[in-house]
Amino acid sequence: MKKRTFLTLVCATVLAAATMMAQDTRARTPLRIPDILGYRTLKCDFHTHTVFSDGKVWPDIRAEEAWREGLDAIAITDHLEYLPHKEDLGIRHDRSFEIARPHGDLLSVTVIKGSEITRDMPPGHLNAIFLEKSAALDTGDDWLAAVREARRQGAFVFWNHPGWTGQQPDGVARWYQEHTELLEAGLFQGIEVVNERDYYPEVHRWALEKKLTILSDSDIHAPVNLDYRVRQGDHRAVTLVFAKDASPAAIREALFARRTVAWSGRLLVGEEQFLRPIFTQSIVVLNPSIELKGRRTAYLQIENRSDLEYALVSGAGPAELHVPSTLVLQPGRVVLLALRARSVPEGSSGTLWEKDITLNYRVANLKVAPDEGLAVTFTARVRLVAP
Amino acid sequence: MKKRTFLTLVCATVLAAATMMAQDTRARTPLRIPDILGYRTLKCDFHTHTVFSDGKVWPDIRAEEAWREGLDAIAITDHLEYLPHKEDLGIRHDRSFEIARPHGDLLSVTVIKGSEITRDMPPGHLNAIFLEKSAALDTGDDWLAAVREARRQGAFVFWNHPGWTGQQPDGVARWYQEHTELLEAGLFQGIEVVNERDYYPEVHRWALEKKLTILSDSDIHAPVNLDYRVRQGDHRAVTLVFAKDASPAAIREALFARRTVAWSGRLLVGEEQFLRPIFTQSIVVLNPSIELKGRRTAYLQIENRSDLEYALVSGAGPAELHVPSTLVLQPGRVVLLALRARSVPEGSSGTLWEKDITLNYRVANLKVAPDEGLAVTFTARVRLVAP
Amino acid sequence: MKKRTFLTLVCATVLAAATMMAQDTRARTPLRIPDILGYRTLKCDFHTHTVFSDGKVWPDIRAEEAWREGLDAIAITDHLEYLPHKEDLGIRHDRSFEIARPHGDLLSVTVIKGSEITRDMPPGHLNAIFLEKSAALDTGDDWLAAVREARRQGAFVFWNHPGWTGQQPDGVARWYQEHTELLEAGLFQGIEVVNERDYYPEVHRWALEKKLTILSDSDIHAPVNLDYRVRQGDHRAVTLVFAKDASPAAIREALFARRTVAWSGRLLVGEEQFLRPIFTQSIVVLNPSIELKGRRTAYLQIENRSDLEYALVSGAGPAELHVPSTLVLQPGRVVLLALRARSVPEGSSGTLWEKDITLNYRVANLKVAPDEGLAVTFTARVRLVAP
Amino acid sequence: MKKRTFLTLVCATVLAAATMMAQDTRARTPLRIPDILGYRTLKCDFHTHTVFSDGKVWPDIRAEEAWREGLDAIAITDHLEYLPHKEDLGIRHDRSFEIARPHGDLLSVTVIKGSEITRDMPPGHLNAIFLEKSAALDTGDDWLAAVREARRQGAFVFWNHPGWTGQQPDGVARWYQEHTELLEAGLFQGIEVVNERDYYPEVHRWALEKKLTILSDSDIHAPVNLDYRVRQGDHRAVTLVFAKDASPAAIREALFARRTVAWSGRLLVGEEQFLRPIFTQSIVVLNPSIELKGRRTAYLQIENRSDLEYALVSGAGPAELHVPSTLVLQPGRVVLLALRARSVPEGSSGTLWEKDITLNYRVANLKVAPDEGLAVTFTARVRLVAP
Repeated sequence: MKKRTFLTLVCATVLAAATMMAQDTRARTPLRIPDILGYRTLKCDFHTHTVFSDGKVWPDIRAEEAWREGLDAIAITDHLEYLPHKEDLGIRHDRSFEIARPHGDLLSVTVIKGSEITRDMPPGHLNAIFLEKSAALDTGDDWLAAVREARRQGAFVFWNHPGWTGQQPDGVARWYQEHTELLEAGLFQGIEVVNERDYYPEVHRWALEKKLTILSDSDIHAPVNLDYRVRQGDHRAVTLVFAKDASPAAIREALFARRTVAWSGRLLVGEEQFLRPIFTQSIVVLNPSIELKGRRTAYLQIENRSDLEYALVSGAGPAELHVPSTLVLQPGRVVLLALRARSVPEGSSGTLWEKDITLNYRVANLKVAPDEGLAVTFTARVRLVAP
Repeated sequence: MKKRTFLTLVCATVLAAATMMAQDTRARTPLRIPDILGYRTLKCDFHTHTVFSDGKVWPDIRAEEAWREGLDAIAITDHLEYLPHKEDLGIRHDRSFEIARPHGDLLSVTVIKGSEITRDMPPGHLNAIFLEKSAALDTGDDWLAAVREARRQGAFVFWNHPGWTGQQPDGVARWYQEHTELLEAGLFQGIEVVNERDYYPEVHRWALEKKLTILSDSDIHAPVNLDYRVRQGDHRAVTLVFAKDASPAAIREALFARRTVAWSGRLLVGEEQFLRPIFTQSIVVLNPSIELKGRRTAYLQIENRSDLEYALVSGAGPAELHVPSTLVLQPGRVVLLALRARSVPEGSSGTLWEKDITLNYRVANLKVAPDEGLAVTFTARVRLVAP
Repeated sequence: MKKRTFLTLVCATVLAAATMMAQDTRARTPLRIPDILGYRTLKCDFHTHTVFSDGKVWPDIRAEEAWREGLDAIAITDHLEYLPHKEDLGIRHDRSFEIARPHGDLLSVTVIKGSEITRDMPPGHLNAIFLEKSAALDTGDDWLAAVREARRQGAFVFWNHPGWTGQQPDGVARWYQEHTELLEAGLFQGIEVVNERDYYPEVHRWALEKKLTILSDSDIHAPVNLDYRVRQGDHRAVTLVFAKDASPAAIREALFARRTVAWSGRLLVGEEQFLRPIFTQSIVVLNPSIELKGRRTAYLQIENRSDLEYALVSGAGPAELHVPSTLVLQPGRVVLLALRARSVPEGSSGTLWEKDITLNYRVANLKVAPDEGLAVTFTARVRLVAP
Repeated sequence: MKKRTFLTLVCATVLAAATMMAQDTRARTPLRIPDILGYRTLKCDFHTHTVFSDGKVWPDIRAEEAWREGLDAIAITDHLEYLPHKEDLGIRHDRSFEIARPHGDLLSVTVIKGSEITRDMPPGHLNAIFLEKSAALDTGDDWLAAVREARRQGAFVFWNHPGWTGQQPDGVARWYQEHTELLEAGLFQGIEVVNERDYYPEVHRWALEKKLTILSDSDIHAPVNLDYRVRQGDHRAVTLVFAKDASPAAIREALFARRTVAWSGRLLVGEEQFLRPIFTQSIVVLNPSIELKGRRTAYLQIENRSDLEYALVSGAGPAELHVPSTLVLQPGRVVLLALRARSVPEGSSGTLWEKDITLNYRVANLKVAPDEGLAVTFTARVRLVAP
């Protein structure tokens, strides 16, 4: 390239790159997770903080971050009782929502009013969301009154981070009599199976046994980017909600109906009725009809059209074929599932057989129970021909 | 976290990360570019080399790379005359194709037999693809005989890198009498508007004037990853071909019918009839109906569902609204197009007007001519209400 | 690998990756820029906002971000007059510094007390830093009184973003009589040649003519990560300060002594006396003695040990050798500078000549003046031997 | 920004970005690992293949890749017996080295002549490097003759991938009588503790017991970038060699003297005498003198100046302080080691104590034995003052 041109280009690029980089930072990265069962799959975070309790950002930032990260809805859930910025900001329980919502409206992110009832264990911390008025929950010593007021307002109430080391130093969640009483009185409906980056297997088990709504929340205090390497394969804890639309009413309906899946890191936690269609609608076998020549390897090409990863571990393999014992279906990519005939008769010719073969796998990171990955199958039409 | 657990995890991770990283490297990254006009949009590279001329990889690697990069078809086009590895590999013009094709078949990548007729300028270098037998083109001093033989075999012939500094030291392509003769004799049909990373505006103009098929090829010699930062926003030069399917016959038909677009870096070069549907089928306005409150800004959310970037520059703006003069629609993301009313009468109330507004832009990096970006419009239903 | 092992590993990895990712986010990435002239090269940002004016983060976050990004010092410079969160936070001009400093102390980041005097143009916005008491600058309508009070407290005062489109719609800075008066009265000492991502060439010229300290500031309002793609090759605007140590006193001394360089994107702006040693101490020619065999190419290997990029454009080339007209010395990497003899006598043998060759380049992105890159040279001992 | 400018910039950027991207791909990324014990720390790979056996690249590419990846030396070790490209390339055992070496010379990468003696187990595959003439090892059925000839030429001989599933289906290495005989006859000196991404703990144990040189090799066949995500935190298996210089003689001397460490993924495997100085010369405690105020946390800032990661797990903690049980020292970054006093007497004032505190850790990923991480300590001067 000519020198003068390059000089111009260097200068232009210095400026243009700056402009483009600036524009580049404000954009939304949609999360590709299939809609299922006639519902939209909403990406939600029901546990976030702002400067109005012990968080570190002005409330509108929560809506801005959510939009950029591809979320559809967030709840602002500042503490009712723990207010370290009180000297500067006073006690204004409904204020953070008031500030965050207009920014959410501007960007079509649903912002839900909530509060965190913040007590010693038991009962620990409880979030109440879809509130009318947070301030009414500021009930002094009587935490039960706060929960009752929340429910009176129609709130969905859930138990936060039951295994938090701040209250359970060994990181193991414990169920107290108080929780039984709350549950029996219809005073709480959900539970965080994931908080921040921590998954609690024992809580997962309770959720299944006691029919509690499974939740996965970030409990974010800092700017999200300080805790997560957003856009580099990292994401905050998210609750997938299967709802008619992204309105507060529709999300609330779905939460009471327990139509959720927890998503954290590579992990998805939820009922088979939700995990199965998420998986099957993410995955396409591009060449379901395949020919094997003698003992040579052929490949099923499996495309994963979602932003989720699936780590497969084989179950009982087919009698006729060698198949891989493990396979990772990477987000947004096509991988190869290698097939090879176990035996080919000597001196054979032509087509030896042709049949539908079922391949059985478990998806290790899609947990229908703490120790159980979702069972899935692939079917391929396989023809074996002599070499 | 408990210490012992961590120790186990560190060890497990060291191993697991290795395993996953290993699996992670063999995958295909599909290129999301919409199918248009009832055709499939194939991603092709019609100019590649192997160790059998002056390339640096065994031929099957060309098919492997193409699969991983999301390409559908490649031509192997080793030089007929320039054979620096002759001492080791002899002169076997059809051999690289023979080796590459089975690997392409294994991965469903179409491999096309070609040769590069490699002469001084004029006529420079010409590629002939869809050959039956490359060796028949090895015609000694008579390059015209080689071209005629290629056409006799039914080949599609195109002129490579007309502005290559190896033959045109100033980087500017020149059209010679020989090219006119070839063209008039029906001996060549296409031309590289892009070779490697170089776009030749003058060649673009010739292609339009002389009805030549527009091509964009990598001319790759090294392993692709040594020349391109694959999977980090970089890609080799690609010709988009709009064909019935990915068979050699269908690709050949499309090339003769001039249904192609060149794609290199951020640049797309081609006819409006192809660029327009690529753009329109990539782009979705998520909220085409929008309300402005007084002088406040509201946003159209524009999603780009393709892996292409679109750099918009505004044309004549609407009388009623301020709109951004530039906007980059980033691949796979949603960006905001800010709208603001130019004037709002004092003391007004209620709805002031509601109408369809058309926004006019040029896509600077979608070139229908060397100095002309594709003209596009967005339409939104806008309602202005008093503040 | 055995299947059971893999299953364990997948589970372990899911957890371990989460743990490591969590730890991974809190770390400092040092910026490798050489210390020069007996001073430390401090990376500073003298213009930042918090929720206490129109910023979006709690003040301690500013210190946390600075630490992670490898900065040594920041000034907190909330607006005195523009206080959109006044309803919630009242008017407490010194408060953001009080909150930020202890966090800076914890992390060894120097936090400097400042304020932004925020007026219409002229004089526009002025920052005063190294204040004792911000509140004393809240002087009502009389902006000159505010500047005088700042100087009375010993502040370093500088003019912010003179070309800001909010005050100069065409983006071109204008110098007013008021600025002459301020300058002549010794009431301001520095000027932002860069604000956010904008470089103002005309301001660069003023700084040279009027002996103003060159500054480059982020003027950050949002969490830094929302405006910059930190750790992906992007960084906020930074002023490099050459100071005895990182104490406020030492930084103040350096600013008054005009020992600074602006760094924004790929651009460095400053005096030759600073840019030259930065360049020469970043660069090592790994093989300064080199042999050329006939017309064959040989390579100088040039290592860039800094995190800065240098875009070289050649000046007058040596009579004996072909050298590249352009070369980008990438941060932290080694690149090749190709040398080739211009002529080799036919039939020669043995050593033809051996001498020191000087290569002349301009560093296009190191601006000693708006249109002038830093002139640099490389010297190599070159021996030409017959082929 | 003005519209016309932007249009120009977009066009300029499209071109300039292409140019810079092109230049960007050819560069060396140095590996920062400290030199120790008066030796240079060379990054070497003693097991690579080319098209001349079953590899996929022309031999010069091996030198080019090595240079870019920051390696200092490679051995070309094509198979003697397994030659699938024989039909095209014939049997020319010394040819790949002849082609690779001049490219290595051009780039200052040491290229070593080797061969892989490729037999069934026992003895499996053996590499002989620093050969004079590979062809002399082509001894037909008698593999022992090949090893003897290699040793006659002064070669360093090592056992490749003892746990390779191709020869040991369960992935566990087995020591045969033949290996004892070879060892006792002085016919082999080293062993691959790592091959590709596989670490064999049992082989590590043998290396310690039998005084074999520890090796870690890529055994690369494809272009490196197809198997490793180079420049994205992934690297091929490397043997660190502590040698006087990068000459073949010096490397050979170091290998016979067993001055090596294996590096693969995050794992380093070797003797304490080497791992300890690598660690201590990588790590700097930036603030070794620290003050604790009552029960508040303070941080040691620990900088890791190398490109290696260190995963710390705490041993016996100090009586006076809480310290983290785990800490990952990320490559090239500064992390925080949190300290907090265990007890502070009520009502105390002034300095309570000041002393040197030693912190004991194991580096889990620096293995001095299969189950033993390197023990390391940090010492800090700690002063506890009343809150």
